[in-house]
Amino acid sequence: MGEVEKLGKQGAVAALAVATVSTETKNKALYAMADDLVAEKDHILEQNSKDMKAAEDQDIGTALLDRLMLDEERIEDIANGLRDVAGLQDPIGEIIHGWRLPNGLTVNMVRVPLGVVGMIYEARPNVTVDAAGLCLKTSNAIILRGGSIALNSNLAMTDVIAKAATDAGIPSNTIQSIRNPDREAVYELMSMNKYVDVLIPRGGASLIQSVVQKATVPVIETGVGNCHVYIDKDADLEMAANIVINAKCQRPGVCNAAESLLVHKDIAKEFLPGIIKELSDRNVVMVGDKEVQEISDTVGAATEQDWGTEYLALKLSIKVVKDVDEAIDHINKYGTKHSEAIITENYSAAHQFTGGVDAAALYVNASTRFTDGGQYGLGAEIGISTQKLHVRGPMGLESLTSAKYVVYGNGQVRT
Amino acid sequence: MGEVEKLGKQGAVAALAVATVSTETKNKALYAMADDLVAEKDHILEQNSKDMKAAEDQDIGTALLDRLMLDEERIEDIANGLRDVAGLQDPIGEIIHGWRLPNGLTVNMVRVPLGVVGMIYEARPNVTVDAAGLCLKTSNAIILRGGSIALNSNLAMTDVIAKAATDAGIPSNTIQSIRNPDREAVYELMSMNKYVDVLIPRGGASLIQSVVQKATVPVIETGVGNCHVYIDKDADLEMAANIVINAKCQRPGVCNAAESLLVHKDIAKEFLPGIIKELSDRNVVMVGDKEVQEISDTVGAATEQDWGTEYLALKLSIKVVKDVDEAIDHINKYGTKHSEAIITENYSAAHQFTGGVDAAALYVNASTRFTDGGQYGLGAEIGISTQKLHVRGPMGLESLTSAKYVVYGNGQVRT
Repeated sequence: MGEVEKLGKQGAVAALAVATVSTETKNKALYAMADDLVAEKDHILEQNSKDMKAAEDQDIGTALLDRLMLDEERIEDIANGLRDVAGLQDPIGEIIHGWRLPNGLTVNMVRVPLGVVGMIYEARPNVTVDAAGLCLKTSNAIILRGGSIALNSNLAMTDVIAKAATDAGIPSNTIQSIRNPDREAVYELMSMNKYVDVLIPRGGASLIQSVVQKATVPVIETGVGNCHVYIDKDADLEMAANIVINAKCQRPGVCNAAESLLVHKDIAKEFLPGIIKELSDRNVVMVGDKEVQEISDTVGAATEQDWGTEYLALKLSIKVVKDVDEAIDHINKYGTKHSEAIITENYSAAHQFTGGVDAAALYVNASTRFTDGGQYGLGAEIGISTQKLHVRGPMGLESLTSAKYVVYGNGQVRT
Repeated sequence: MGEVEKLGKQGAVAALAVATVSTETKNKALYAMADDLVAEKDHILEQNSKDMKAAEDQDIGTALLDRLMLDEERIEDIANGLRDVAGLQDPIGEIIHGWRLPNGLTVNMVRVPLGVVGMIYEARPNVTVDAAGLCLKTSNAIILRGGSIALNSNLAMTDVIAKAATDAGIPSNTIQSIRNPDREAVYELMSMNKYVDVLIPRGGASLIQSVVQKATVPVIETGVGNCHVYIDKDADLEMAANIVINAKCQRPGVCNAAESLLVHKDIAKEFLPGIIKELSDRNVVMVGDKEVQEISDTVGAATEQDWGTEYLALKLSIKVVKDVDEAIDHINKYGTKHSEAIITENYSAAHQFTGGVDAAALYVNASTRFTDGGQYGLGAEIGISTQKLHVRGPMGLESLTSAKYVVYGNGQVRT
């Protein structure tokens, strides 16, 4: 039996056992995991510096290096994340619905764990601990597979938290990491339907697409956001400018940042010169259609490809549309069903936009940047789902749960 | 562009349009579809007799022939099914949750359609209409692909109901069937992530496994049930016998029928002779472990394969277990996570069983045969999910829905 199959088999056994562990024990384990991460920080930082050195030699770029890097403060933050999760309400065991049937059977729909969660991610070692903590809180077993570039960091942290968890009374093998750095191990995890109940890929578009294409285990697709802000003819233009600047510039590298601005033709001449100047002042590169270019010569020409691109950078595509219908059609054609905003004072336009655009989150007169588990008050976030099955939008603890029916009778048979 | 891609593209356009159609229009369409099916029954029966003739020549067996066969009464039943769906509450538009954030944003989680549903099924022409009706009621577009053996019947019914629906105001291409009978067309449908939001396979285990293995579109896995009844040492043995007979014999060919009987060792000698005789009298073939065979010489030897087999016939495997723990372990090892029953008067045994067995439906002192959307009062059933993602157990109209967040603000930006 190969490593991955062994982890799968062990994970399935652990999943059944951890499903009935008390909230008290789970919380005790989360606090112990936090404490041990801090206590073992020297060892973890030593392993992280091995990864950092190898990564520097491979010249992976400063952004990726920064994601990979751990220091004392970051380990403290990661540990505090676990303590926060311990403080959240345990969703497991909730009676979601319950009713009595005419024949006297009492039906309870009870929230239960998913089982074994496979987490596939890239070079961010904090995901190792965040994901393990959220899965433990929801009584799931987890099999982690981070990017090979972070392997030493991930394994060091997994070893620490897995030991802390079992010492606190959590079944062994509830938290496991794949040690084999080869890509084959990921493929094996993705097709292990027998033992793995769900895969959650976290990372760039190509990682997620690769998992969606190759997995036979059910996948929760996360993350890619080609988000639009549409400025209606009846918008408050000062509010519109504030929201566009916030959605584009406040944190351009994240999935809920705006990538495209749509402007109603009736206010284009009034609105565009000012916002283009404000965005230019903030170093935003802009491309637009012919109408936009006629209004401003600092805007380049947008290609067909631009409309479908998530820049994740200080770049914005701009298009003039003739009405809210054209805005809706454009977004449904080029968007990724993530977060979409309309700025308007017109009731009917808002109604039409929120009903007609197919996306996880629709905003009227607010920034797309709010699509976030923390902002929505969900307490914790595993990711943002852009698929329609199981969970959509920010994924809180409930997204790591399923349900079972428990039916109580006194001898009922079917006639 | 091939046929399937064309249907996918058209379906995606229709899905956006049908998402905002009123309940009134949808119900009007469902009634019109029902009326037109009855009005066009001669044409449908003519096409069905073509399929029947070809199927008889292929010698597919009487059970399959019966599933394929339509007559006036069956068409009336199918039409009445559509009228029943019209009478159900429309789940679309429900505000599932709603709350206000500290910054004044109002968050609404609204129930919306899934989008485009791909339905892959076998030789039962009634699925064509049932599935189309349920998808229309939930504002989804549907692409149907039934077994090629029922192609003429399916296309005749699709043509009738699709026309009735568009005449009643439903967007064109909301209901479509694939005309190409080749298997390649099914594979194409299964990998059309760009246009199809979910696949629901309905049929035997091999069809479902083939879809799970090959699909890149998310799948809702349905149906296979290797269900157990466990008779605890503290069971009311008369109740136990009634339930075993009901679970095995009332309708042996369905997924919620029992396939395996587990009996506590302390009551095996008292319980087994009587139930084995009663089952024998009802023509049930039995296989068992050594302990069972020692009690009765009419029981054959069970192989390892028997414990994992869904017979779908008058056959039952029987095992003696030493306690509720062994029963739970056996079910978690060999079961298909469908429906599992314990018969006991012991509170702790019931508690342990319902908590420890991982399945869609757990029964205390009731037959496994109750796992059914109609029995649970869900109004309609698309199938029974045996996966943990999105929906588990009997699938009502809600299982054909997703959600979107609609967030109302007055200029909020993220800081």
